[in-house]
Amino acid sequence: MRVLGIDPGLRNLGWGVIDVDGSRLSHVANGVCKSRGEDMSARLLSLHQQLTAVCEAHMPDTAAVEQTFVNKDGAGTLKLGQARGIAMLVPAQFGLNVGEYAPNRVKKTVVGVGHADKAQIGHMVKVQLPGCDPASPDAADALAIAICHAHYARSIQVTAEKVRA
Amino acid sequence: MRVLGIDPGLRNLGWGVIDVDGSRLSHVANGVCKSRGEDMSARLLSLHQQLTAVCEAHMPDTAAVEQTFVNKDGAGTLKLGQARGIAMLVPAQFGLNVGEYAPNRVKKTVVGVGHADKAQIGHMVKVQLPGCDPASPDAADALAIAICHAHYARSIQVTAEKVRA
Repeated sequence: MRVLGIDPGLRNLGWGVIDVDGSRLSHVANGVCKSRGEDMSARLLSLHQQLTAVCEAHMPDTAAVEQTFVNKDGAGTLKLGQARGIAMLVPAQFGLNVGEYAPNRVKKTVVGVGHADKAQIGHMVKVQLPGCDPASPDAADALAIAICHAHYARSIQVTAEKVRA
Repeated sequence: MRVLGIDPGLRNLGWGVIDVDGSRLSHVANGVCKSRGEDMSARLLSLHQQLTAVCEAHMPDTAAVEQTFVNKDGAGTLKLGQARGIAMLVPAQFGLNVGEYAPNRVKKTVVGVGHADKAQIGHMVKVQLPGCDPASPDAADALAIAICHAHYARSIQVTAEKVRA
């Protein structure tokens, strides 16, 4: 099973792809989609094109997006929401289910504690995906989301197999 | 010039298309894209498909989206942002520029006051677009956004002609 993890953002949208074989995880690719400029619709179009290219290149089987919002700043939350809309749309256009995980859930699954910092996440991503060198903290977060999704997808599968047995 | 106005929303995304010939406006079509269900990515995909069908059917030359956010509720603002991301993306995928107007600007242009209510907007949309019967308040808002965009696009054009003369 190939998993695409996405850390949504308007300026920097992190993505990471991993393969899952039983309990074995391996790194496939990671990167950041960047959008710059004044015109919001052009920026969203650019993110859509870049993320579509990632899906075409790596053909994931399932995807997950971080579930996050900022409560203090309405304008900032709206911008993040617009980028997140693109992050949720593109995998759906490829026929994929899109999981959503809260940041604390991702940190707890990957690092073991819900309040891990960026450095701890980057370290544990490298430990769990040998040979992987994330392009940026956003790409490391995206790989962490993919690891989290792999963990939960596997749990669901194992439970289903036990129920059938 | 054919203008598409969009009132973004996750449950009900209003749209309206008008034709602009000098200072004459005429109604082309209006409606509401609806998304239901639990799965956010499937709902966004549904909105994308419906709005793409509207663009294919009516082939607008330019588009405008209401610029709005809710400050009180982060989760609500994020949901609106996701729907708004789709509303901004689809016209950009058809090569259109996408204008953004604050709700007060739209009301002031269409009704004459910045704090008009839904009923006043609905009334003035019918006055300015004879024979038009909006499908819902969201569709009426979308037509108001299109009228506002037509007004500003015309102002810019007239100013440009004066500068050239």
